[in-house]
Amino acid sequence: MSPLPPGAILGILGGGQLGRYMALVAQQRGYRVAVLDPQEDAPAHQVAHHRIVAAYDDPQALDRLAGICHAVTFEFENVPARSLEPFQKAGVRIHPGARALAICQDRIQEKTTVNACGIETARWAPIRAQADLAQALGKFGGTGILKTARSGYDGKGQAKVDGFADAMDAWKGMNGVDCVLEEIVPFAMECSVLAARDVEGNCFTHPVCENMHSRHILDVTVSPARVRESAARAMRSRTARIAQELDYVGHLAVEFFVLPDGEVLVNEIAPRPHNSGHLTIDTAMASQFEEHVRCVTGWPVLPYDLNVQAAAMANLLGDAWEGGEPRWERLAEFPEVRLHLYGKAQARPGRKMGHITGWATSADEAERLVRAAREAIRP
Amino acid sequence: MSPLPPGAILGILGGGQLGRYMALVAQQRGYRVAVLDPQEDAPAHQVAHHRIVAAYDDPQALDRLAGICHAVTFEFENVPARSLEPFQKAGVRIHPGARALAICQDRIQEKTTVNACGIETARWAPIRAQADLAQALGKFGGTGILKTARSGYDGKGQAKVDGFADAMDAWKGMNGVDCVLEEIVPFAMECSVLAARDVEGNCFTHPVCENMHSRHILDVTVSPARVRESAARAMRSRTARIAQELDYVGHLAVEFFVLPDGEVLVNEIAPRPHNSGHLTIDTAMASQFEEHVRCVTGWPVLPYDLNVQAAAMANLLGDAWEGGEPRWERLAEFPEVRLHLYGKAQARPGRKMGHITGWATSADEAERLVRAAREAIRP
Repeated sequence: MSPLPPGAILGILGGGQLGRYMALVAQQRGYRVAVLDPQEDAPAHQVAHHRIVAAYDDPQALDRLAGICHAVTFEFENVPARSLEPFQKAGVRIHPGARALAICQDRIQEKTTVNACGIETARWAPIRAQADLAQALGKFGGTGILKTARSGYDGKGQAKVDGFADAMDAWKGMNGVDCVLEEIVPFAMECSVLAARDVEGNCFTHPVCENMHSRHILDVTVSPARVRESAARAMRSRTARIAQELDYVGHLAVEFFVLPDGEVLVNEIAPRPHNSGHLTIDTAMASQFEEHVRCVTGWPVLPYDLNVQAAAMANLLGDAWEGGEPRWERLAEFPEVRLHLYGKAQARPGRKMGHITGWATSADEAERLVRAAREAIRP
Repeated sequence: MSPLPPGAILGILGGGQLGRYMALVAQQRGYRVAVLDPQEDAPAHQVAHHRIVAAYDDPQALDRLAGICHAVTFEFENVPARSLEPFQKAGVRIHPGARALAICQDRIQEKTTVNACGIETARWAPIRAQADLAQALGKFGGTGILKTARSGYDGKGQAKVDGFADAMDAWKGMNGVDCVLEEIVPFAMECSVLAARDVEGNCFTHPVCENMHSRHILDVTVSPARVRESAARAMRSRTARIAQELDYVGHLAVEFFVLPDGEVLVNEIAPRPHNSGHLTIDTAMASQFEEHVRCVTGWPVLPYDLNVQAAAMANLLGDAWEGGEPRWERLAEFPEVRLHLYGKAQARPGRKMGHITGWATSADEAERLVRAAREAIRP
């Protein structure tokens, strides 16, 4: 699948801060952005080209979005599967895909998938009936964390339970919906790994983040996490394995528990940019939002392992449009290169329309790179 | 002067790509943005909160902008001095200041100022009368570059001249306005130094950029420039000296000629972010636009000489607004820290309103930093 050309419209379901940062990056790369969110003045609506104020399951609004956008993505994982149908029908690319979303929306499916890869989680059991709860509590020493299988976030939809009566109360409080009971793990630290995977299957993982919570909401993140090298390596490789299993395209975060002995267990998967990845905006060579937008629009992940010692920039004047639209898709052959477009509608000779930047290990190589990239996109 | 608090409005004169990048950064930091540009769909108008479509010297439009904004800056140097008056009257902060702008708008003043600092330019002479031209040509061997003193850019308003007749023709073609004649310098390379200077006088300079032009328009920039270390040092220190002399606040670029023997001469000053600085968006810890916005809104320059090995992020929940607006100005005591706000109008407990990032030489130090910064802004 070739990359989405600049000028195309990226649809974003969800208009909070994650959607806002996605929108800002997409605009910088020359895309137009359409945001669907029920709130009038949502953070992403403030910066979008097209604003659709509607519920996430409003069929008309979804049809409208599907009718204008060329690719669609999500700022949260609890998108109803039915909301994807208009996009499937309209032939819009959907990243991450329906299967990855479905798995990550349901703790039972998610944990089953992770364990099936040979990757450990805390011990857990699906809770669909009273008998499941009694049996699981027996196995976990009478205590555990009860979590709804679907729709939880920031500690919502979960409860620490102690004994059968307490567990039944909690479950009733959750209206008896499908749940999981997780064994309580005496972890020493909570971590996350931010990863980006492109349509070709190339995957990049960031150094591990160490996360501190307050009232179940992320409070402070520090990177690199203060863990042993072996634990960090294990978390990064398991994240890449999970991304592969999900055939994931875009940015995702995998949360881990680190045990006192250095063993690591997967906690959960966030199929989107993640609060712990906000520090990448200011401190990494590319932010998690840029990685997400690159991947979901079909561009290769940036090669982060590069030793960046030099950079170069080549201007794109209107002259580059003589003979037709530049052949943007060719930039996919230059993963070290990033495109900027300024949103000017008319390309005139001599007019500064955008630029290309690239980095390399030497000034000579950086210059060669941006010149070659610019040459490659000539119409 | 204390920093401009988030929520305040930054006015930008000029809505091209430079203004657009300024606007995007300002919005990320929680400011609202008002752009004045004569073009309806100018790149910065597309992303601004307030759009004023009017000429740069339209008194009513300027009054309107001055009436709503708390600070004003420019994406180009040829702002008529009269256009600054409404802002002066309204008590709006103007950065860079009127004096720096006035000097940089006029090649005669600019070169006089640079030379007065003991910093070399190519030899030059002011041309206000026919006799000036004859005398200068005599001094420079009969040839030179004739440039209008005001309003030139991208090679416009300049001509290479050979002999008195040719020079007179060129001058007449420029309607006999005040000019300078510059000696032709057999330079080996053109370079620029990007610098940011804050209200306290702290100045940061980037590694030198090497610039290649095509038809007088910047074509390719490479950083670091392939020059001797001594030449690079000289260019950076002279740029800082010039910024000091202009009592400059914001981002500026100084263009240099590098001679075959490694000597450097100042070519000209751009009192704003510069095309050669676009690579900082993708490849530096902060872009030239971020530096500009930080400085013109009264924040300290980021300390780039820091060895960045770790980073941290602290969430800002709505709780931080309990008891009043956070004391934003205190963040100025933490130059390694950057603020993000998501544009949410209402602060509710538990609602994610923004975050703070910081970097340091160790994870411990990074954590301490963001926690201390967040603590400091408690109302």
